[in-house]
Amino acid sequence: MKAVVVAGGFGLDNLRVEERPDPEPGPGDVVVEMRAVSLNYRDLLMVRGSYNPRQPLPLIPASDGVGTVVAVGSGVTRVGVGDRVCPIFATGWLSGEPSRDKLKTTLGGPFDGTLCQRMKIGGDAVVRVPSFLSDFEAACLPCAGVTAWSALVTHGQLTAGDTLLALGTGGVSIFGLQLAKALGARVVITSSSDDKLERARELGADVLLNYRRNPEWGKAARDATGGRGVDHVLEVGGAATFGHSLRAVRPGGTISIIGNLGGGSIELNLLGVLMQNIRLQGVIVGHRESFEALIRAVEQNQLRPVVDRVFGFDEVKSALEHLASGNHFGKVCVDITARR
Amino acid sequence: MKAVVVAGGFGLDNLRVEERPDPEPGPGDVVVEMRAVSLNYRDLLMVRGSYNPRQPLPLIPASDGVGTVVAVGSGVTRVGVGDRVCPIFATGWLSGEPSRDKLKTTLGGPFDGTLCQRMKIGGDAVVRVPSFLSDFEAACLPCAGVTAWSALVTHGQLTAGDTLLALGTGGVSIFGLQLAKALGARVVITSSSDDKLERARELGADVLLNYRRNPEWGKAARDATGGRGVDHVLEVGGAATFGHSLRAVRPGGTISIIGNLGGGSIELNLLGVLMQNIRLQGVIVGHRESFEALIRAVEQNQLRPVVDRVFGFDEVKSALEHLASGNHFGKVCVDITARR
Amino acid sequence: MKAVVVAGGFGLDNLRVEERPDPEPGPGDVVVEMRAVSLNYRDLLMVRGSYNPRQPLPLIPASDGVGTVVAVGSGVTRVGVGDRVCPIFATGWLSGEPSRDKLKTTLGGPFDGTLCQRMKIGGDAVVRVPSFLSDFEAACLPCAGVTAWSALVTHGQLTAGDTLLALGTGGVSIFGLQLAKALGARVVITSSSDDKLERARELGADVLLNYRRNPEWGKAARDATGGRGVDHVLEVGGAATFGHSLRAVRPGGTISIIGNLGGGSIELNLLGVLMQNIRLQGVIVGHRESFEALIRAVEQNQLRPVVDRVFGFDEVKSALEHLASGNHFGKVCVDITARR
Amino acid sequence: MKAVVVAGGFGLDNLRVEERPDPEPGPGDVVVEMRAVSLNYRDLLMVRGSYNPRQPLPLIPASDGVGTVVAVGSGVTRVGVGDRVCPIFATGWLSGEPSRDKLKTTLGGPFDGTLCQRMKIGGDAVVRVPSFLSDFEAACLPCAGVTAWSALVTHGQLTAGDTLLALGTGGVSIFGLQLAKALGARVVITSSSDDKLERARELGADVLLNYRRNPEWGKAARDATGGRGVDHVLEVGGAATFGHSLRAVRPGGTISIIGNLGGGSIELNLLGVLMQNIRLQGVIVGHRESFEALIRAVEQNQLRPVVDRVFGFDEVKSALEHLASGNHFGKVCVDITARR
Repeated sequence: MKAVVVAGGFGLDNLRVEERPDPEPGPGDVVVEMRAVSLNYRDLLMVRGSYNPRQPLPLIPASDGVGTVVAVGSGVTRVGVGDRVCPIFATGWLSGEPSRDKLKTTLGGPFDGTLCQRMKIGGDAVVRVPSFLSDFEAACLPCAGVTAWSALVTHGQLTAGDTLLALGTGGVSIFGLQLAKALGARVVITSSSDDKLERARELGADVLLNYRRNPEWGKAARDATGGRGVDHVLEVGGAATFGHSLRAVRPGGTISIIGNLGGGSIELNLLGVLMQNIRLQGVIVGHRESFEALIRAVEQNQLRPVVDRVFGFDEVKSALEHLASGNHFGKVCVDITARR
Repeated sequence: MKAVVVAGGFGLDNLRVEERPDPEPGPGDVVVEMRAVSLNYRDLLMVRGSYNPRQPLPLIPASDGVGTVVAVGSGVTRVGVGDRVCPIFATGWLSGEPSRDKLKTTLGGPFDGTLCQRMKIGGDAVVRVPSFLSDFEAACLPCAGVTAWSALVTHGQLTAGDTLLALGTGGVSIFGLQLAKALGARVVITSSSDDKLERARELGADVLLNYRRNPEWGKAARDATGGRGVDHVLEVGGAATFGHSLRAVRPGGTISIIGNLGGGSIELNLLGVLMQNIRLQGVIVGHRESFEALIRAVEQNQLRPVVDRVFGFDEVKSALEHLASGNHFGKVCVDITARR
Repeated sequence: MKAVVVAGGFGLDNLRVEERPDPEPGPGDVVVEMRAVSLNYRDLLMVRGSYNPRQPLPLIPASDGVGTVVAVGSGVTRVGVGDRVCPIFATGWLSGEPSRDKLKTTLGGPFDGTLCQRMKIGGDAVVRVPSFLSDFEAACLPCAGVTAWSALVTHGQLTAGDTLLALGTGGVSIFGLQLAKALGARVVITSSSDDKLERARELGADVLLNYRRNPEWGKAARDATGGRGVDHVLEVGGAATFGHSLRAVRPGGTISIIGNLGGGSIELNLLGVLMQNIRLQGVIVGHRESFEALIRAVEQNQLRPVVDRVFGFDEVKSALEHLASGNHFGKVCVDITARR
Repeated sequence: MKAVVVAGGFGLDNLRVEERPDPEPGPGDVVVEMRAVSLNYRDLLMVRGSYNPRQPLPLIPASDGVGTVVAVGSGVTRVGVGDRVCPIFATGWLSGEPSRDKLKTTLGGPFDGTLCQRMKIGGDAVVRVPSFLSDFEAACLPCAGVTAWSALVTHGQLTAGDTLLALGTGGVSIFGLQLAKALGARVVITSSSDDKLERARELGADVLLNYRRNPEWGKAARDATGGRGVDHVLEVGGAATFGHSLRAVRPGGTISIIGNLGGGSIELNLLGVLMQNIRLQGVIVGHRESFEALIRAVEQNQLRPVVDRVFGFDEVKSALEHLASGNHFGKVCVDITARR
């Protein structure tokens, strides 16, 4: 089988397609024939070497994907041959509290990821996905989908009538928008593009803020709640946005610290966090139980992850460059079955 | 001003309209000119003397209602003259944990209730209501609406993809159905009437169970979840239904014990509760903070409480008889401004 | 190896010691040489056939025990040969929400239990125990200990200054007393024996209620809180005690429904539950994550489970009869290594 | 009556004792004859003008104190003349979620504080204190005590067997140490002074870290948990300590952001927060319901706040300078009844 690997050193230029032996399932394992992958900002950081500079190479990148079970090892009963499944992000984190050990079981680093034709993985570490989703849509769930769910529901308990501020139109933000609308919440969303804001409105966004035209968008988000402040911020920006997020959020509200961060540090005024009783919640995706809850929500509400663009199996470098450009709306995907 | 009172003894036959002095607001109080009232099963029990046999008479019954602020006492800043407001159910319970003292401040017994033309009440004990609701719709919020909210959200943390089982089509059940749909949840509902089930479907119910035709409806509800069991039951029935509710609910799920109970006892098999790790949660309406959260959800999702029928101010006895008949779908209301 | 089995029919008279083949560990398994077992009321109900009349026989009863790992199968890394471990009650419930499938993995029925010399069990389904505990003390943790922990901490979030009402002096109640004291809470305890009450005082109980001399002990417990009501009741009694527990608990408080129930039903006045916003929480032991948290608490606070009496491996019938008599204080244990 | 005020400009040199008219209680108010005050770092920042540069002057500083009710206005039933009470920090925050309005009702800025002989305050905004505490001890509860409680219990749900890392030996840290021990938790504490560490050990601290001798104290704290990481950090230091706190805490753990901060900003590596699923919780004291729960814990566990040193009513400047020096262990108090 073939796999995309980063080898010989970090960097997009070190990505190549390699031949690997077909995996055989051990006891408790399954083998999944991968069909689609979606990319996350973490994958870009990982390939560049900035997520974990000590990650051994070669590495098969990416953690989001979907495929079909083609073989099962002894003792596997949760899934069977022919099931369409997604691997989970941290293969050892099924439910409950995280731990250092559980967080060392993540795909796309340190473990090999989803950018391959056949993937061996524990039978406990996959989740069946709803049939109404396309492969590309389903491939967006494990990382971007579960991250949005963990932030809004598992940690944030967002509920009907609450207000969410979503920053930008990347994968987690758009998923957050969709979930928040399914939950009966109100959504304020930001972008520098009126076109993207218009697309967000079509997905249900209630308040659109062009942060170019409205540099004081944190205050504008707060004003949009009648001065009360938003209940939850999906903070994906980091240094450039954090001050605005703090201005937007209500006392006692939550700012989820998630994915798309540039890897750098921010200046944080702790006094502001303290004085308004703010909660900052780091969200490293989530466990399988959250994924299964997400699946039920996706199925009940017929939520379709938004796919920005699909690249071929031989175009992963271009796909990651597109992701890095910030020009996408929703998720950037790779078709494992197609070369372009 | 005029008020409906139960006087001289308990019973529907002891209801009458009486003249009372116009109230004046003390420091911190407001006076509300009532426009509409909605009735709850608790009001029926209270008038009959079975809710609290030691309730002193005369009593102005009912806790749900809406009106317009016509006078404010010194120090009141939360609301002003002209605001349309609902009184809250327990006037001393603004947020946080309940206490015996807080639960002694409920309207319609022990305190005089809403079936009157002018009502004096603490300025802390009213909540402004959205303008898009009619008076009759708004009058349904404080007790039936807040009860459903407390059960599903404050205690139950129902979320998208969860399944709710609502018993029957009374006020709390129908509100629960509407809220659950706004939250992205799935709803199974029961009735003995196919017509009512059809109306529930129009409000979004996913699974309809006619308990006459399907006496094993608890098992049927569980089957409708693929055997997993429902996450939450709004239990309004009591002795006749509890065993079915226990069969329907998933391990670790919640059965909310609410309103419409006949006042009697049930045979409860504790071993079943224990072995499935079930939670039974008594829900005595809720605090003002829950009411305010409900208002935000109602406004964001444009939820309209379902009004079954409106009676005149001189028809309270007939209204309570209609409520007792169980033939209603949604809420039974009284128009304070009209005689029939 | 030898095992105690109930065979040929339910009932204490059908208990016997049988020879069984020595178990070999499969992939992921461990074999534990058992040293001590503690008995729970559930074991008594199970042997009598009243817990689950459809339980297939023969069955090795009991779920609580401790022993030493003597063999590990491939892939086991959590524990090694020589470790002293307890099996967990539900071998498939490691953390998170329960499910029907997880609750079907319990020891001592439907799965064979701990009353044997060598036990094969999944390597995920054991927990290392602190060295300062004797074997008999350690054997009390998995079921009685975890049940008390789940009730008070996982579900109940009992904290310093709260008041616990513990009914009687059986295993869960005494463990609940010890944990509550470690948590800085106040404890009210009941018994019909002044001697037992005195022993409870030595373990830290703050208020002693002899329910023979004080038949209105529910009200007395409430009075002991200055009328506020206790925050939590460990309800092990069932029909005879429930009304008193309801009188004791504060509005918004919790009654945990646990273990020692006679298997029957109770008359429950739902109106009382509803009007005081009471939570009844069924507690079917708990998951491994709770067990591990309990271990940390036991170690930090040097808590020693109270062992009432130790029986020989050939005295299980007498041990269960002693348990049934209600004359114990704390846990009834079996020494797997000794015949009497 | 006399009051300490900062007037004419910010700064310790602008503190003076002034004559003010004796307050009279309005409806719902009480007048408290103050006996003792304890100082917080916030008071120092407030007097210097760095907490809120727009605070109008003159201002009576300080929010912690205790005194005796000497007059009650109409409608006050919670307390009576002769009761010994503490004012609460935010007089409008009785329970539930904070809000901008509630957080504008804090004593010692924007409202006048406790450094006065007679104080008028809402009858809802005081809490009776246990008689076993001295005035100086009781004066430490409203701000330092409630902050520690909110951090550890209300937000943090610290429980038996958890590990707390307390930074330094200021008021909140020492209170956190005492509460954590009452809760059955393990405590790691830091200081630059072996003498102070020894005193912490006498109060129950399990692990002592001299951060001068052990500059990698964050890692040392983590090592003290066997590599698992501490469950909770009481972070009072800010820029200089935050990186160490992040290294100490376990995945999924909580860092409470509290009091003694220098008012500046920190460099925060969000990627570390994200990758370990850390929660940062700002804690601005807490509501009256938390205060009342704290009182129950203090009473049950006979916790005595640690008073470092008592200054006279005319020595407030010296007292604040002592606080600023960082040489204290526990709380710095002022005796309202004494001049030195």
